[in-house]
Amino acid sequence: MGFIGFLSDFGLRDEWVAACKGIIYRIAPDSRIIDISHEIPAFNIRKGALVLALALPYCPIGVHMAVVDPGVGGFRRPLALKVGRGDILVGPDNGLFALAAERLGGIEIGVEIKNRRYMLDKVSPTFHGRDIFAPTAAHLSNGADIADVGPLLDPKLLAEVPWPKPIIERERIICQVIDIDRFGTLRLSINALKLKELGVSVGRPLWVGVSGHRHLMPFVETFEDVSAGEFLMTVDSSNWISIAQNLGNAAERLNASVGDEVVLKVPAS
Amino acid sequence: MGFIGFLSDFGLRDEWVAACKGIIYRIAPDSRIIDISHEIPAFNIRKGALVLALALPYCPIGVHMAVVDPGVGGFRRPLALKVGRGDILVGPDNGLFALAAERLGGIEIGVEIKNRRYMLDKVSPTFHGRDIFAPTAAHLSNGADIADVGPLLDPKLLAEVPWPKPIIERERIICQVIDIDRFGTLRLSINALKLKELGVSVGRPLWVGVSGHRHLMPFVETFEDVSAGEFLMTVDSSNWISIAQNLGNAAERLNASVGDEVVLKVPAS
Amino acid sequence: MGFIGFLSDFGLRDEWVAACKGIIYRIAPDSRIIDISHEIPAFNIRKGALVLALALPYCPIGVHMAVVDPGVGGFRRPLALKVGRGDILVGPDNGLFALAAERLGGIEIGVEIKNRRYMLDKVSPTFHGRDIFAPTAAHLSNGADIADVGPLLDPKLLAEVPWPKPIIERERIICQVIDIDRFGTLRLSINALKLKELGVSVGRPLWVGVSGHRHLMPFVETFEDVSAGEFLMTVDSSNWISIAQNLGNAAERLNASVGDEVVLKVPAS
Repeated sequence: MGFIGFLSDFGLRDEWVAACKGIIYRIAPDSRIIDISHEIPAFNIRKGALVLALALPYCPIGVHMAVVDPGVGGFRRPLALKVGRGDILVGPDNGLFALAAERLGGIEIGVEIKNRRYMLDKVSPTFHGRDIFAPTAAHLSNGADIADVGPLLDPKLLAEVPWPKPIIERERIICQVIDIDRFGTLRLSINALKLKELGVSVGRPLWVGVSGHRHLMPFVETFEDVSAGEFLMTVDSSNWISIAQNLGNAAERLNASVGDEVVLKVPAS
Repeated sequence: MGFIGFLSDFGLRDEWVAACKGIIYRIAPDSRIIDISHEIPAFNIRKGALVLALALPYCPIGVHMAVVDPGVGGFRRPLALKVGRGDILVGPDNGLFALAAERLGGIEIGVEIKNRRYMLDKVSPTFHGRDIFAPTAAHLSNGADIADVGPLLDPKLLAEVPWPKPIIERERIICQVIDIDRFGTLRLSINALKLKELGVSVGRPLWVGVSGHRHLMPFVETFEDVSAGEFLMTVDSSNWISIAQNLGNAAERLNASVGDEVVLKVPAS
Repeated sequence: MGFIGFLSDFGLRDEWVAACKGIIYRIAPDSRIIDISHEIPAFNIRKGALVLALALPYCPIGVHMAVVDPGVGGFRRPLALKVGRGDILVGPDNGLFALAAERLGGIEIGVEIKNRRYMLDKVSPTFHGRDIFAPTAAHLSNGADIADVGPLLDPKLLAEVPWPKPIIERERIICQVIDIDRFGTLRLSINALKLKELGVSVGRPLWVGVSGHRHLMPFVETFEDVSAGEFLMTVDSSNWISIAQNLGNAAERLNASVGDEVVLKVPAS
C-alpha cells in the first residue's frame, strides 16, 4: 500500500484532478492519495515548487506526482526522479522539483519517461497529467522499476527555476517577497541562518522597507509577542524569514505582492 | 472495497460535503471516496453534467453520487441508474447524469429511490444529499440490489438538460461556448469528428467570430504550436473543440462567457 | 483503522493541510482522514465551531482535529477532549469545540496536551497544527490513552465563544445572522423549537426586518413551496431557522452580512 502525493494547478472546479485520481486508483487501487494542493495559481511553477518543498518532507515516503505545466505538449521532458529519502517524483522537467528534491536528500536517479507501457493507450497532447504522469506514478507505486520507465538523465541537465538571491551590503539586505500565504504573511528570499550570520537576533527590531514605506518591526519568536495589529518579523515554520501582522493581513496592509523588493536594515545601536 | 465518486455544488466552506462523506463512511467504512468536484457553481446542472462525463470514464467502476439540485424538496425524483460499464449513478432526476450515462455505456436499469431502509431515519426536505443519496449510495456500494432501492423507471422519461446543437450552414458553423475552464480555455458545442466531416483539418486557420470580433486562429495539435500569447483552436483532451491562448487566458482576452455564440468559418482557399 | 476528521482555516493553496495529513499518515498509516473543511475564513472561530457541530454528528466516531487558531504561539492551551459519543477532539482551547462537544454528548474528559512524546521533535511557535495537533491526534487514533497526553482540565474552565442569544419580546424576536452559506441562505440565532414555543407554525407568514427593510415571508417546509425568486423562512437541515430565496441568493438580495440583526414579527391575525 503506497502513498501518492499529488500537486497541481488544476483547481477544483474542472474534471482534471478527478480524472488523474481515477487513473491512479484503476492502476493502483490500494494506493492512498494525499492531495498536496490543486490551487497553485495557473502556470506558477515557483509556488508549486515551494509548496512541494514545504509539504513533502512531512509526508510518508512515496511516489509524488506534480503538474504545473505551461509547456504541456511542447518540448519539455516528462521526468521521474528518485531522491535520497526514497521517494520518486513524477512530472514535467521545468524546475518544479528542484527545491523538493534537495530537501528530500537530492536526486539519485533521473529518467525521462518514455515507456508507453506505463502511459494510457492514447496520449492527448494537452493532458499529460492524466495520460502520462498519473499512470506512470501508479505503476511506480505498484513497484515498477524506475530504470524501466525510460532512459537515464543527467540530473545536472534538469531545468531550473531561478530563485532570487538576497543582496547583502554593508548596512542592509535587499531581498524579495517570494510567497504570500492566505493569512497575508510575506515569505522573504532569505533564511533564518543567513540572518543570524549577519548578526540579527531575535528580540531586536529591524527597519523594513517595502512598497515605498519604511517600518520598524520587532524580530520575534511568535505572533503574540506583539500587540494585535502590529507588524513583526519572524522565522516561519519552515525556517524562512517572514513578515506578518498579528491578527491582521500584512500583505494587504503593506500593499505588497510576490516579487516586490524588501530592504532590511538593522538600526544603529 | 468499492469506489464512490462524489460530485456536488456544495463548495468546501460549509458542512455539507463532510456530512455526506461521514454518512457514507458510517455505512460503508471500507469504501473509498473520490471527490470529482464540489466547486460546481451553485445550481449549474450543465457544468455538473459535463464534469461527470469527463471524469467518470477515467475512474474505477463504482457507485457515483452527484448532487446539483435546484429542485431539492420539490417534485424531481431521486434516481439510481445502472449503466453499461457497471457503475451505478445516484442523484436527482434533473439531467445531471445524461451525458455521463451515455459515455459509460448507456442506462441499463433506472429506479426511483423510494426504499426508506436505505435513507436516514429523518429526511430533511432541504438536504437529500445527506439523507437520501449518501446512504443509498453507500448501501449500493455495500452490495444492495438496485432493484430493491425502488420501482423501475423508463429511462426515456428521465429529465434532460438540453445542450445547444451547432447550426451548420454552407460557409459557416454557429456554435456556443459551453464551458470555460480555470485556464480560460473555451469549450465549444461542437466535437472534433463533426469538424472533420466539414473538411476542417489540423494545420489550417479558421475565422472565429466571438464577442463581436473576428480572429484568424490556427487549428493546431497543441498549445506550443503557436507563439506565447497567440490564440489557437484545438481538440481538447476529451475530443471537443476548444479555443485557447498559449500561456494566456483566452476567455478574458476575448471577453467571452458561457453561452456566447461563436461563429466559425473556413477561409476561402 | 480509525477515522480522523480534520477542519482548519488553512485554505488549500499553501502547504499546511498536506503537511498535517502527511504527519498523520506517517504516524497512523492505516487511518482515514475526512476533510471537514479547510476553507473556514481565516481566524473565524465561530464559523469553524458551527461547521464542526453540523458535520461531526454525521461522521464515524473517531479522533477529530480542528485548527482555527488566532492565538497560536501564545497562551491558549492545546486540548484533547473525550466526548460522550466516544470521539476525541484535538485542537486549541479557544471555544472551537464547545458546540460540537455538546452535540456529541458533552465533554467527559479534558486534558491539556503536554506530553512531548506525542509531538514532533521540534515544535515551531507558529504551526502547532503540524507539530502538536496532528501527531497527537494520530497517536490517539493509534490507541494512545488520553490520560497520557497531559494533565486533566476542568471542562468548565475551557474557553467559550459567545453566541448571540435571541431577545424575545411580546410581539417580536430580535436575533442575528450567525452564518451565510454558499447559496446565500442566512442562518439565524434561533432554533426551530424556540420558534414553535412562540406559536409560530409552518404555513404562516412572518414579517422579517433585515438591513433596514421589512419583508413578509412565508414560513414553509421547503424551497419549492414558494415561487422562483421569492424569499422564505424555513427550518434548515440542522434544525436552525433560515432565510432563503428559492433559486436565488438571499444574502445578496437582502444585502445581509453575518452579525446583522434580524427582527421577526408574527402579523396580527
